[in-house]
Amino acid sequence: MDLSTTALLTDRYELTMLRGALAGGTAARRAVFEVFARHLPAGRRYGVVAGIGRFLDALEAFRFDGPALDFLTSQGIVDEPTAAWLSSYRFSGNIWGYSEGDLYFPGSPILVVEADFAEAVILETLALSILNHDAAIASAASRMVHAAGGRPIIEMGSRRTHEMAGVASARAAYLAGFTSTSNLEAGRSYGVPTAGTSAHAFTLLHDNERHAFRAQLDALGRDTTLLVDTYDVARAVAVAVDLAGPELGAVRLDSGDLAETAHEVRAQLDSLGASKTRIIVTGDLDEYAIAGLSAAPVDGYGVGTSLVTGSGAPTAALVYKLVARAESDEGPLRPVAKRSVGKPSRGGRKWAVRHIGDDGKAIAEMVATAEPAPGPYDRPLLTELVRDGEIVGREPLAEARARHERALSELPPRAFQLSRGDPAIPTEFRDA
Amino acid sequence: MDLSTTALLTDRYELTMLRGALAGGTAARRAVFEVFARHLPAGRRYGVVAGIGRFLDALEAFRFDGPALDFLTSQGIVDEPTAAWLSSYRFSGNIWGYSEGDLYFPGSPILVVEADFAEAVILETLALSILNHDAAIASAASRMVHAAGGRPIIEMGSRRTHEMAGVASARAAYLAGFTSTSNLEAGRSYGVPTAGTSAHAFTLLHDNERHAFRAQLDALGRDTTLLVDTYDVARAVAVAVDLAGPELGAVRLDSGDLAETAHEVRAQLDSLGASKTRIIVTGDLDEYAIAGLSAAPVDGYGVGTSLVTGSGAPTAALVYKLVARAESDEGPLRPVAKRSVGKPSRGGRKWAVRHIGDDGKAIAEMVATAEPAPGPYDRPLLTELVRDGEIVGREPLAEARARHERALSELPPRAFQLSRGDPAIPTEFRDA
Repeated sequence: MDLSTTALLTDRYELTMLRGALAGGTAARRAVFEVFARHLPAGRRYGVVAGIGRFLDALEAFRFDGPALDFLTSQGIVDEPTAAWLSSYRFSGNIWGYSEGDLYFPGSPILVVEADFAEAVILETLALSILNHDAAIASAASRMVHAAGGRPIIEMGSRRTHEMAGVASARAAYLAGFTSTSNLEAGRSYGVPTAGTSAHAFTLLHDNERHAFRAQLDALGRDTTLLVDTYDVARAVAVAVDLAGPELGAVRLDSGDLAETAHEVRAQLDSLGASKTRIIVTGDLDEYAIAGLSAAPVDGYGVGTSLVTGSGAPTAALVYKLVARAESDEGPLRPVAKRSVGKPSRGGRKWAVRHIGDDGKAIAEMVATAEPAPGPYDRPLLTELVRDGEIVGREPLAEARARHERALSELPPRAFQLSRGDPAIPTEFRDA
Repeated sequence: MDLSTTALLTDRYELTMLRGALAGGTAARRAVFEVFARHLPAGRRYGVVAGIGRFLDALEAFRFDGPALDFLTSQGIVDEPTAAWLSSYRFSGNIWGYSEGDLYFPGSPILVVEADFAEAVILETLALSILNHDAAIASAASRMVHAAGGRPIIEMGSRRTHEMAGVASARAAYLAGFTSTSNLEAGRSYGVPTAGTSAHAFTLLHDNERHAFRAQLDALGRDTTLLVDTYDVARAVAVAVDLAGPELGAVRLDSGDLAETAHEVRAQLDSLGASKTRIIVTGDLDEYAIAGLSAAPVDGYGVGTSLVTGSGAPTAALVYKLVARAESDEGPLRPVAKRSVGKPSRGGRKWAVRHIGDDGKAIAEMVATAEPAPGPYDRPLLTELVRDGEIVGREPLAEARARHERALSELPPRAFQLSRGDPAIPTEFRDA
């Protein structure tokens, strides 16, 4: 697959709309599209914005090169004038957005795209794919991090999701507070710390567990993590400490009753003098299982499937909607909205602030169709990402990670209940 | 992101196991790894094999180039001997697998990888990511196609999943019987037919619905699909037929009570003489909603979110396990298996046939640790994909699509119930 351009990561209807608008003379009308969620996944208290940095990278690579245009014209998807327009396409408009790591609530204008209709309409799928995926993963990750109460979590779900989604999942999980990932490409591309030592296959390769442990210790040193549940856990722990001594870094449990086994292994390690050897648990953990292990002597978690599948909410249900457009190439922007059952949309370009009380706690998400005058503690939420086509909103992933922690600290305690409930703060809409 | 190699779409522990095996002298032991599912997603009757072709492409691009090796050594993940070994890595073993589009059941050996331990152990994440994703999507798609009862289904879920997962989802859905996709990259990369005309944004761009419809008809012709639920459906249908005449291709409904509205729109179209104009429905459909619309006058469906999220089962839970290995570089293969609670594995290299009765219907999935003697109607399931490192199992996607239809025709009727139940046929294990 040719991945030198992201231009065909697009739904066909965006290019047929472009074709119709070019032919009909409406393509140059100024327009505003917004990304928002009509609702959070059932029972979730907050959403986590993620994918903004990946979207900016993808936008930069969104160019209709020769092979892409050949495909589109040979299939009759676009006509010659549309192909000519696409061949010189570079987004030249403005984009504002919530910063990565910040939180969102129903109706939060996560991304605001202002450009000619033609330039903006063809970004729908690219923006939504990236933001829907990454926000779903980061939102699930944030709950797991809270449930872990300061204990580190390794992301290890790559094998349970699309191979490139695995890389993005590792990034989103790190942003939301995970400590590291098993995914090497995420280490290289995004600087996420990587982790991992061995699987059961390594033990099974050897004639016995002692041989396997010795080979791993020889290669990786005593600070490594030995997997002790291939045969008999107690025997494996004894062999592990016998070979590595009390400097053994950690043991990993991947099956069985993790809480009970962790207690037994902790007692055994302590009795062998390995009181600093950590216990890492893995195996079908989610935020509920992590919370259930809070009283067990566990030093770290590995989470796979439930992280990369959004723990029951694999997509964030974000939409990309036209909210305003001019009535001519030069006219002022007018709010527009669809009028269909069950899917309310609010017309007009939006601004947003998080309304914060004098105790530093968030009170409401204020969304308005005019630029608001923020109160003394309020925090404006939209930052400039693209100005006249130039990307100005890039930032290191570490900044997003730190922002997420700060944004969480503003939330009231009810935001952190794992049970289903309403959004942690209400969204208040104000018309200009 | 540099995508010229797939080598870092790998979990770190695979390379540390390699490092340990190289240092310990066990790396060249002959080994067999297998991909299988311990169980189907809760209540599903069958799984659909998908992703084999994508895996073969990814295997071909699995090379540790300079930048990849620099990353691995600079991070201390591999030592120099391991880096040297990786730099000349090319898979030189044998791989057999179920063909794409065929079905699988618990314990089916979907992929059998035979090679030196070192060569095979590092393919775990690559194989599982691709097969877990694609099988989950194809398995959900197959149920939707059956529920649609011959009516066409357009895949349109790209926006609700990772941008590259969207492309793979379109491929998997087509393989399982979907008619087309909205995703242009899937059209280019895999030849999946593409579809799509317009969104509500196109209507809202124009001063009124009549202008929008006229612009679309002018650009795309009368055979296009007009979206009629932006304002008032009945009025939109009247305008659509007024402008396009009875040759109007289709109208699309994306909201409201789809069954009731489809009946009203069908009556209106017929009364206007547009009896050949089709009705396409979209909007949060899954296999249950599709089945619920079977009595409605609907001519086609568009499915998004539920398809790309596997309709409740976003991953296929396939695992990659060492099942046999030699005890020395030259010795015979011996079965191996982990002995841990709740996760049974069966040691030994497997063969599989679908046991078919004289009525042409499948009776059981026969999985054995010796090459079986198939009965007169039985169908051997493993085909050669890679021979001594050379890829020999590529095939056109159309073949997989046709195979899926044939494989389904072997299943008993209970396989097609949407309700939860046991696998359609039992898996019978036989030891050599």
